[in-house]
Amino acid sequence: MHERADLLSYKNIVLLTDGASRSGSAKTATGVVRYRQQDVAAILDRDEVGSTAQQLFGFGSEIPVVGSLGEVPTADALFIGIAPAGGNLPEAWKPILLEALQRGVDVVSGLHDFLVNDPQLVAAARKHDAKLIDVRRNHEKTVADHASFPANNLRIHAVGHDCSVGKMVVTLEVERELQRRGANTRFLATGQTGIMIAGDGVPVDCVVADFISGAVEQMLLRNTDAEIMLVEGQGSISHPSFSGVTMGLLHGCAPQGMILCYEAGRTAVKGLPHVPLKSLSEYVRVYETIAGLRYPSRVIAVAVNGKNLDDAALDEEVRRVQDELGLPACDVYRHGAGVLADAVEKLRTEVLG
Amino acid sequence: MHERADLLSYKNIVLLTDGASRSGSAKTATGVVRYRQQDVAAILDRDEVGSTAQQLFGFGSEIPVVGSLGEVPTADALFIGIAPAGGNLPEAWKPILLEALQRGVDVVSGLHDFLVNDPQLVAAARKHDAKLIDVRRNHEKTVADHASFPANNLRIHAVGHDCSVGKMVVTLEVERELQRRGANTRFLATGQTGIMIAGDGVPVDCVVADFISGAVEQMLLRNTDAEIMLVEGQGSISHPSFSGVTMGLLHGCAPQGMILCYEAGRTAVKGLPHVPLKSLSEYVRVYETIAGLRYPSRVIAVAVNGKNLDDAALDEEVRRVQDELGLPACDVYRHGAGVLADAVEKLRTEVLG
Repeated sequence: MHERADLLSYKNIVLLTDGASRSGSAKTATGVVRYRQQDVAAILDRDEVGSTAQQLFGFGSEIPVVGSLGEVPTADALFIGIAPAGGNLPEAWKPILLEALQRGVDVVSGLHDFLVNDPQLVAAARKHDAKLIDVRRNHEKTVADHASFPANNLRIHAVGHDCSVGKMVVTLEVERELQRRGANTRFLATGQTGIMIAGDGVPVDCVVADFISGAVEQMLLRNTDAEIMLVEGQGSISHPSFSGVTMGLLHGCAPQGMILCYEAGRTAVKGLPHVPLKSLSEYVRVYETIAGLRYPSRVIAVAVNGKNLDDAALDEEVRRVQDELGLPACDVYRHGAGVLADAVEKLRTEVLG
Repeated sequence: MHERADLLSYKNIVLLTDGASRSGSAKTATGVVRYRQQDVAAILDRDEVGSTAQQLFGFGSEIPVVGSLGEVPTADALFIGIAPAGGNLPEAWKPILLEALQRGVDVVSGLHDFLVNDPQLVAAARKHDAKLIDVRRNHEKTVADHASFPANNLRIHAVGHDCSVGKMVVTLEVERELQRRGANTRFLATGQTGIMIAGDGVPVDCVVADFISGAVEQMLLRNTDAEIMLVEGQGSISHPSFSGVTMGLLHGCAPQGMILCYEAGRTAVKGLPHVPLKSLSEYVRVYETIAGLRYPSRVIAVAVNGKNLDDAALDEEVRRVQDELGLPACDVYRHGAGVLADAVEKLRTEVLG
């Protein structure tokens, strides 16, 4: 955790998304731009030089896209801005990382390929007194023991029908909305981007399998001063690659309430077009069944990601989902998180009195 | 995998269970005695010197229990014989490991605490030209991609209501029974003890979380020359510590049929007496639901572990379970695996024609 302690100290971050700004894997960059805009100095993508974050992502205002680190003399960190499945560093990026280190700029990565395992990077970092920070690197070795959480804690967990549907954004937006309302609440990060934003958390997909639930349980036990814990979700229970992560995380955080996140119109697993997704009602049923093995839990609301829909189609989708599932629904990107925050507060009253 | 390639070459194994032979965690030793009896020279337990495997475990015949390695001059390997939750090496065992290395005896461990991370052990191994083999150590980094298995393969998976109920033994007994009947079948190990017995496999509980299913999927793809693949199970879907492992394994092997293993009379999770187990019918329902997210699957038989029952009570238990679940059932320790092998062959006819 020491390695990550300083993540929030960077105030002139360059986000590296070279050649990948418009790909789905740039979600680390978009997350950091969205929630740490004031700390981002530039985006480095040689394919998009002269553009702005706003033009690339639809938010992020005038953050410039540059073609080299030399254009950002104030840079204090280079953040790897992508999160590809498998987590490898693109070979072509190595010279950019070496240049950063030579300039004394720290490099922060959320990849499975650890920077500290590359002797060339380690040597360069040492020579120029720069840091290599692997956000996913961890030494979690605690077996979960079905901890009892304090009676005055509410645990909410974002679950999804697939990867990359906006679970992190939903959780952060609900946190911000509840904080605006004066609630004592905290976002608990479980992925590399969330950790880069919050400065703390458990990179659950990189924990050794036996310790997934234990790492999450420990994180919650460290945060019981927050009345409402909002735990970021990962993957999907039906995802053929990552369901083990999803399951261990779900049992580790033992939520009383879940928010089901999905992307309207997505019909197949991301990256696996031959694998159809299930119906939303099946996700509700399955998540409630398996969460209930650990602690009584139910889906309390639905977060629709309507990025492929116009406003009218989104309104219709929200109505359809509300009718079909009998649950409140909204799109946090377009409607804000008020409806979801209402559902959390309703459950708080029910559970905590 | 290279490190494990020689596991079957050891023909004079000493099993280290010092002070723990009668504990539940000695299941690595009992597994190796049960399935590699001819390769075991002795058991090292200073508390039980003069006893035999038969007296300690109820099988293993005249394998002697010794108090020091010096009593077994032919020893070619010292196997750590326990598998405690969390997987740490008892401090008091370190001198025994050092003595083995000083004698040029290889040390084989299935603990999470890797021997190769201990500089003192590494130095001793180097000096005396002995090997340190960590069976759980792996570099699995393949993301599962929902592989299609050949149409002429049957995948059977042992699942359980808890840890340590005999899933490995059930799988090995079914393999042996099917082989006696002439089937082209293979046991695929997913835990340290199974790997020590079979000489190959995936230590699934020690794989980095994102790669659990991928590691298992790859193992199956390497073994499609076997018509019937029998995949060892791990943990339980309701286990608050290990359900992520269970889930990732289940989706990685995508079984058409499952054998539900349970210990009669066990009412709470092993090691967590405050966590009640669910009913068998709930396990059937939940396993079929979550396996079905990956591939249509059903529980085809029940393996009763009747170690706490006398013969009459076991007969009654088997009848009760058969009636309640409408599934064939038996105890492989007492009845052999014929009933389970029948269920597998019936499913083979159904699925493969």
